[in-house]
Amino acid sequence: MIVLYELTGADDRRRFSPPVWRVRMALRHKGLAFEGRPWRFTEKETIAASGGGTVPVIVDGDAWVRENMAIAEYLEATYPEGPSLFRGPEGLALARFMVAWVDRTLALPVARLIITDIFSHLAEKDRAYFRESREKRFGCALEQVCTDPVAELASIRALLGPARRLAAEQPFLSGNEPGYADYALHGTFMWARMMSNKLTLADADPLAAWLARVDALHGGEALRALAAVGAA
Amino acid sequence: MIVLYELTGADDRRRFSPPVWRVRMALRHKGLAFEGRPWRFTEKETIAASGGGTVPVIVDGDAWVRENMAIAEYLEATYPEGPSLFRGPEGLALARFMVAWVDRTLALPVARLIITDIFSHLAEKDRAYFRESREKRFGCALEQVCTDPVAELASIRALLGPARRLAAEQPFLSGNEPGYADYALHGTFMWARMMSNKLTLADADPLAAWLARVDALHGGEALRALAAVGAA
Repeated sequence: MIVLYELTGADDRRRFSPPVWRVRMALRHKGLAFEGRPWRFTEKETIAASGGGTVPVIVDGDAWVRENMAIAEYLEATYPEGPSLFRGPEGLALARFMVAWVDRTLALPVARLIITDIFSHLAEKDRAYFRESREKRFGCALEQVCTDPVAELASIRALLGPARRLAAEQPFLSGNEPGYADYALHGTFMWARMMSNKLTLADADPLAAWLARVDALHGGEALRALAAVGAA
Repeated sequence: MIVLYELTGADDRRRFSPPVWRVRMALRHKGLAFEGRPWRFTEKETIAASGGGTVPVIVDGDAWVRENMAIAEYLEATYPEGPSLFRGPEGLALARFMVAWVDRTLALPVARLIITDIFSHLAEKDRAYFRESREKRFGCALEQVCTDPVAELASIRALLGPARRLAAEQPFLSGNEPGYADYALHGTFMWARMMSNKLTLADADPLAAWLARVDALHGGEALRALAAVGAA
């Protein structure tokens, strides 16, 4: 069975990494059996065979694969019989673009908004690592990263514009059916909701309806995870 | 024959509207005969039957269609026999997302960078309209819109990151073959190059190789237009 290493907080059920959520949804999408194994920031040794120090990492027989998009392409190539994550070169292009856009545009502002909430849910042994690495990245104390959460949320909602326009025109970002482009953005909302209540959408936002549709996919995979930590 | 109204400068050949270029390339892509008719900002009456005051507008028999994405979807539905602009729902999603991303992310910074060059190439009768409407939009004189072109260009190059990543992995933004997602971004570079020499890419930028590929499509449509105004 495939093993997926999943970043988690003090509570093993609080799996919160955005790119890990992309892979979890991709595995469900393809109907593949897997074991999601809790992993924490400081457990670098456990995944050293992957060639990197971050998750997602999967182990599939003898194969170690890391980095969410590489894993998605690996799953598609290795298990072509399951429902496709991309449905052709255009869908692959869409997924790649959505991943690049989320990673380069949204990841940092959302991190700023929820960073103290993330910290509060981490395992004790991860806290020093997280504080030190993030304070170096942001150039200030965690508590100073987001001084105006109202403005930060407004900015994030504005940044979501291109995805919002897509959600207003079609049921899924991938088109008529869900695909990896949906999971690319959905992971950001899982991250935010597993760790915080600050990233909200207006009720009338087309992205709110889209999010509810993705949350319900694959037997309510996302909803179950949120409920388990009291977040839904 | 389809008529396409195309925004132009003092020189009839200097057709520069980004969304009009998307439509011109889409018409070539589908192998449809058309007449590109020069149109200027202040000729609102000419296109009033479209229901709007901006181009692109096409007239196809009795049908007036406006707005680039609506025109692309109209062409795809009306002329299904030509090569597809989207190649399925995933390609349509990709095109919609690329259009939304370019319009919301790139259009304003590129406008800032080249706005005085645009002004210098306009027909005399369009200049007052352009100056007034753009100075209102930017809240300052045209000459004050971009005070640091070096920083603006660096910012635009950084904003292009998600498209650059796509260009590094596949020959066209649409996948293995060109499509509307390519024309969505290409129009921005046509706009910039028809009117200015300020929007440059580093030689090693994967987007430079992509741009050369799109420029050469459809018998060198873009190259011919650039050469006609001494821009290539």
